[in-house]
Amino acid sequence: MAKKTLGVAMIGYAFMGKAHSQAWRNVGIVYDIPAEIKMVAVCGRNASNTQEAADRLGWDGIETDWKKLLTRSDIDIIDICTPGDSHAEIAIAALNAGKHVICEKPLANTVAEAELMVAAANANKNVKNMVAFNYRRVPAVALAKKMISDGKLGRIFHIRARYLQDWIVDPNFPLVWRLEKDKAGSGALGDIGAHAIDTTQFVTGQKLIGVSGLTETFIKERPLPGDYSGLQASASGNKMGKVTVDDAAVFVGRTDGGALATYEATRFATGRKNDMGFEIFGSKGSLKFSFEDMNELWYFDNTEGAETAGFQRILVTEGVHPYMTAWWPPGHIIGYEHPFTHEVKDFVENIVNNTNPEPSFADGLQVQKVLDAVEKSSANNGTFQTIK
Amino acid sequence: MAKKTLGVAMIGYAFMGKAHSQAWRNVGIVYDIPAEIKMVAVCGRNASNTQEAADRLGWDGIETDWKKLLTRSDIDIIDICTPGDSHAEIAIAALNAGKHVICEKPLANTVAEAELMVAAANANKNVKNMVAFNYRRVPAVALAKKMISDGKLGRIFHIRARYLQDWIVDPNFPLVWRLEKDKAGSGALGDIGAHAIDTTQFVTGQKLIGVSGLTETFIKERPLPGDYSGLQASASGNKMGKVTVDDAAVFVGRTDGGALATYEATRFATGRKNDMGFEIFGSKGSLKFSFEDMNELWYFDNTEGAETAGFQRILVTEGVHPYMTAWWPPGHIIGYEHPFTHEVKDFVENIVNNTNPEPSFADGLQVQKVLDAVEKSSANNGTFQTIK
Amino acid sequence: MAKKTLGVAMIGYAFMGKAHSQAWRNVGIVYDIPAEIKMVAVCGRNASNTQEAADRLGWDGIETDWKKLLTRSDIDIIDICTPGDSHAEIAIAALNAGKHVICEKPLANTVAEAELMVAAANANKNVKNMVAFNYRRVPAVALAKKMISDGKLGRIFHIRARYLQDWIVDPNFPLVWRLEKDKAGSGALGDIGAHAIDTTQFVTGQKLIGVSGLTETFIKERPLPGDYSGLQASASGNKMGKVTVDDAAVFVGRTDGGALATYEATRFATGRKNDMGFEIFGSKGSLKFSFEDMNELWYFDNTEGAETAGFQRILVTEGVHPYMTAWWPPGHIIGYEHPFTHEVKDFVENIVNNTNPEPSFADGLQVQKVLDAVEKSSANNGTFQTIK
Amino acid sequence: MAKKTLGVAMIGYAFMGKAHSQAWRNVGIVYDIPAEIKMVAVCGRNASNTQEAADRLGWDGIETDWKKLLTRSDIDIIDICTPGDSHAEIAIAALNAGKHVICEKPLANTVAEAELMVAAANANKNVKNMVAFNYRRVPAVALAKKMISDGKLGRIFHIRARYLQDWIVDPNFPLVWRLEKDKAGSGALGDIGAHAIDTTQFVTGQKLIGVSGLTETFIKERPLPGDYSGLQASASGNKMGKVTVDDAAVFVGRTDGGALATYEATRFATGRKNDMGFEIFGSKGSLKFSFEDMNELWYFDNTEGAETAGFQRILVTEGVHPYMTAWWPPGHIIGYEHPFTHEVKDFVENIVNNTNPEPSFADGLQVQKVLDAVEKSSANNGTFQTIK
Repeated sequence: MAKKTLGVAMIGYAFMGKAHSQAWRNVGIVYDIPAEIKMVAVCGRNASNTQEAADRLGWDGIETDWKKLLTRSDIDIIDICTPGDSHAEIAIAALNAGKHVICEKPLANTVAEAELMVAAANANKNVKNMVAFNYRRVPAVALAKKMISDGKLGRIFHIRARYLQDWIVDPNFPLVWRLEKDKAGSGALGDIGAHAIDTTQFVTGQKLIGVSGLTETFIKERPLPGDYSGLQASASGNKMGKVTVDDAAVFVGRTDGGALATYEATRFATGRKNDMGFEIFGSKGSLKFSFEDMNELWYFDNTEGAETAGFQRILVTEGVHPYMTAWWPPGHIIGYEHPFTHEVKDFVENIVNNTNPEPSFADGLQVQKVLDAVEKSSANNGTFQTIK
Repeated sequence: MAKKTLGVAMIGYAFMGKAHSQAWRNVGIVYDIPAEIKMVAVCGRNASNTQEAADRLGWDGIETDWKKLLTRSDIDIIDICTPGDSHAEIAIAALNAGKHVICEKPLANTVAEAELMVAAANANKNVKNMVAFNYRRVPAVALAKKMISDGKLGRIFHIRARYLQDWIVDPNFPLVWRLEKDKAGSGALGDIGAHAIDTTQFVTGQKLIGVSGLTETFIKERPLPGDYSGLQASASGNKMGKVTVDDAAVFVGRTDGGALATYEATRFATGRKNDMGFEIFGSKGSLKFSFEDMNELWYFDNTEGAETAGFQRILVTEGVHPYMTAWWPPGHIIGYEHPFTHEVKDFVENIVNNTNPEPSFADGLQVQKVLDAVEKSSANNGTFQTIK
Repeated sequence: MAKKTLGVAMIGYAFMGKAHSQAWRNVGIVYDIPAEIKMVAVCGRNASNTQEAADRLGWDGIETDWKKLLTRSDIDIIDICTPGDSHAEIAIAALNAGKHVICEKPLANTVAEAELMVAAANANKNVKNMVAFNYRRVPAVALAKKMISDGKLGRIFHIRARYLQDWIVDPNFPLVWRLEKDKAGSGALGDIGAHAIDTTQFVTGQKLIGVSGLTETFIKERPLPGDYSGLQASASGNKMGKVTVDDAAVFVGRTDGGALATYEATRFATGRKNDMGFEIFGSKGSLKFSFEDMNELWYFDNTEGAETAGFQRILVTEGVHPYMTAWWPPGHIIGYEHPFTHEVKDFVENIVNNTNPEPSFADGLQVQKVLDAVEKSSANNGTFQTIK
Repeated sequence: MAKKTLGVAMIGYAFMGKAHSQAWRNVGIVYDIPAEIKMVAVCGRNASNTQEAADRLGWDGIETDWKKLLTRSDIDIIDICTPGDSHAEIAIAALNAGKHVICEKPLANTVAEAELMVAAANANKNVKNMVAFNYRRVPAVALAKKMISDGKLGRIFHIRARYLQDWIVDPNFPLVWRLEKDKAGSGALGDIGAHAIDTTQFVTGQKLIGVSGLTETFIKERPLPGDYSGLQASASGNKMGKVTVDDAAVFVGRTDGGALATYEATRFATGRKNDMGFEIFGSKGSLKFSFEDMNELWYFDNTEGAETAGFQRILVTEGVHPYMTAWWPPGHIIGYEHPFTHEVKDFVENIVNNTNPEPSFADGLQVQKVLDAVEKSSANNGTFQTIK
């Protein structure tokens, strides 16, 4: 029997658009998925730039108005890769138009927007919704989740999470859209802190119930970029603009499982390029992960005797590890873009099998509430904010 | 000219007493110090146990009443290795008796006690006072201090510090004195968090000006030990006692240099045996340290070009490194007890040269105020506590 | 102007065929190469298996007789992914038929075969030849090459290289084709030792001039596999066959640059999954690499003062690093298959620009001579074998 | 009952003399040994230098003629810390004089000398002999020995050993005694290669039965030092002398247990300060050690399932680990000099208990034969040399 064909349209074609394109292009070849993927169209405001992106990234056509995508019958899936300020409008319209929606994170710029998105998802149960927390599908992260579910850590005492980058340490780095609150919603907190929050909640199966935190903007003003076409925009002489998001956020919290948690998200960790990582300490064992070494998971087995116990480096490249059987032999590592392939594979399978993808918009809303609580706590001098 | 002789008496002979004895015994042989050290007496309540300790640790005699030590003319230095509840009384009396005092940390169990100790120190300027934050004299830590003083890190954005142990994860571990508030003052916070606070303030030259934190006692009740003679005491059947100190403390803070700081102190980090460590991120570079690899300091030089920049492992065993010229050739590491030797070496030099040792009681008081602020913040739902 | 189209045919579709397919499929999207790639046909003996592979790996058609490929005008490039015993026949015929040839390593099973291949390459200068030592195009390896060319290591004293795997430690692992001399030529030596030899000669710019070595077959007999369809074939009862290749080879040598070299290739390094690595020690600096952490290069700068000198971990993910500008932002790593994309990118550019690809068949022959010298030395009790 | 007193005399007081003094001074305090140690005398040619050393290192008296030591009744143990050319004469005379002898390694400068020493040991069974391969008593090394004895590695396939230093990379480093064949016997091979050989033979319980090797002297001439008082002697203008020992030695070999072995000893491994290390690969598991991280042992348990198997870092600081119960709590590391304390502790216990210390002079002779075979192989173009 011929496989069903699923037509995909992607909105936005910058960094995330490139990663998603790579995933859509390869998923059907790497995995034996239950549908044929057709990369129908990419959408952007400027026709010639969009066409150039379509050619480069492998999309069959383009649109310059995202609303047109919703009326096309050859499009089943809308993949939203735009800045956060447009997520809600696009996603809600797409769901109402009967399209499956996968949306980049953070789900929205505010809790209110995210709640509207969840409401739209609930009102359109015939189509699927997913928020693109891609780190959940790093094999080492998925393995961590499995090991904790299997009971290997016992009672969890501590969750230490961080997302450390350093790309704006230079005060001459320009004021790109990610540094403007009206477009990005928040700074390090929402852009990368959201990943650390979602990943550790996913792995531990525990939710944050309250937080106490501080945020800081180390460089208050930056040169305006000539245009917003990319992160590499150079400084435009002396015109300066105000940075309206946090450069860094740090917070402590408690989970519904009784653990103490610490989180740090910053773009000022000089020398740390993309260090999304965690350590989880439990009564029976511990786990440690860093995305800079994304194929490794470190495990301490506290049930082993003291003579030989020690943190062990699991090289997560074996056939028995999540998602890895489709790739290479043991010891042959995968890279940054592979978890996007895992993500769209699972999304497609959920669509065809009529099951609900995770993380859902509801999961995205919950993360949004944590971000909101951190901001409120910081604005209130660190006072503990309960998360409902 | 013959060297002056300095007589030392030590009060307490458990874990810290053993480490201090090793230092007093070797300092004059390893370093060319300007005095002859005489290990006059060790003091404990029980005569036969104390005599056994004197024989084992190399002390010439014993006393069972510490007040006797203060009247002896052959004793110049009082070394206090008792639990925190007795520090203030002994130290103040010793200073008033004209003895130089080196006191284990934390300086006292409360800010009020610590203030009295500082007052006594100020009132007795003819004798020296020092609080034994031994980690300051780990060569890698002293090198970190020097590198920051030399400007190698530029403006500091982040201080991430931790002290992670796991020796009471087992709920059957008994209720030893370190778990009782009236003896120990606090739990992980004061015992090991104090080290992380002092070390990072020392290294960065910045003080915490406020904190927001949470503490937790994961195991509320534990078996009573048969006696208090040591940490290895076994559980005594079913009799349980209440744990009255924190098992873990986590907090975020701000420094007078504008940095964001995060601290974690816990005895529930399964697999971490003695991980006192920090990462410091600055505009020109970064540093990383863990006591489990105490001979290493990791440095990222942000002024190097991107082609070759990377965290570099400085093996702090070269003759040019602090304190190391007295030990072994490059690549031959030192261990836990060596910084105690460095500490007493510096203390003796300060005494003979009539200069003021660091860290002083005043430094110990400042750390006590931070500990106090963390406890107050935790008791007030994480509300930011200013430190004066 | 429209780009030229290059038609590719691949012979063999096992492990290497999968990696090459991934490269051909993505190279034109990731890089702006000067030709359009068309994946014309994959070739295998069994039509249905080959068709299944074509569908799975993205090839437009199939052939079951490789000679047919040479007569087709829509095929410009022959990509040889078969076992070593067929390399010479296919490659020579393809070159003579005017096809560009990229051939998996080792180039051939004997020096004699490799010499015939080089002769054919020399006789057909209108077409290009390349041997697929893919590790040359790992960005960290290419960076090592550049740093040494730039003089960063000075005079080289030592080359320590290894390729460590453990996939046949289990004596019940079956007698697959890689363990049969008539198909594979040699065992660990030719399969993985060849990579270590080529990579280090490439990086240092020095050739081995003589070697002294030992080989060993630890497990002399193994169960016969039911068929040769894959490495995962299970043991077939009690029928045993003789292992006719080495399980491990170790040798020391001298280079034309005056360095001492050590090499180890083994499939019995329990716990090492794919550890192709090297350390190179020079008068001005040193380098260290392991393929299990393929995005890292460790560098010791001996011109830095002793206070801060140390091995530094270069995370080879910056835009300034070889091949990396096409991929992701700093800190976002790549995986095993990416260097294959780099390899075909360079091969295509050489074809279009009429320049000579490296490594060439002549480079492959030189490696074959080293392998041959190691085998001769081992057969002669370790006596030093000069390599011409 | 009062403990027996053992009087010790040490000959030589340079680097090794300092390490041995530290051990003799502390052993009775750290361990409850069955004898009282008295540091009677240190011996050197120059009276004032020797007196200075005695004062600095804690010896009660001095002698300037080692033969005098043998006539003194207050001396029971002779500790030989001189260059290798004097070992045989002193040790044989001391044994014949009824003194227990501990001798630095390598045991002698030639096999012939070592054989005479073993003969003297056999002829004087009333006194004990020991060769000071101190690395055997690094707790991590002793643990490795125990784990292999317990069967945790199964059949051993590979032994990879190395001793890497870099202290003479600078061609202006002077021609110290360690670079002269008549004093030192050999260069890197005998000085540090001997440690790697002894340690791995000890740990695996397997002996080398033959080797094939190469040696090299990279810098053929060096400035003469002004005097031989230490390694830090500076270059003395233009007068040059010939280096008569190897700078580096590399060899492969076979053991009586059927393993392949590789060894490297060099003083030209830029950036490696004191990296004595090994990896041992067996059917059931693997071990890895480096002296630069001497408190760690890495273990791969091949009997664990693939999902979680990985190299685990055993922090060898637990009470259950060899020699560690006398030192500090878990996570508190020891340093370079501690294994010397373990060594003299065991030596003293052997003396009092009338048991035979290991490693004995016979063990030292066996290592000498391996060194000899490597030199012969190198002189014969790498030809395999059998070791009897």
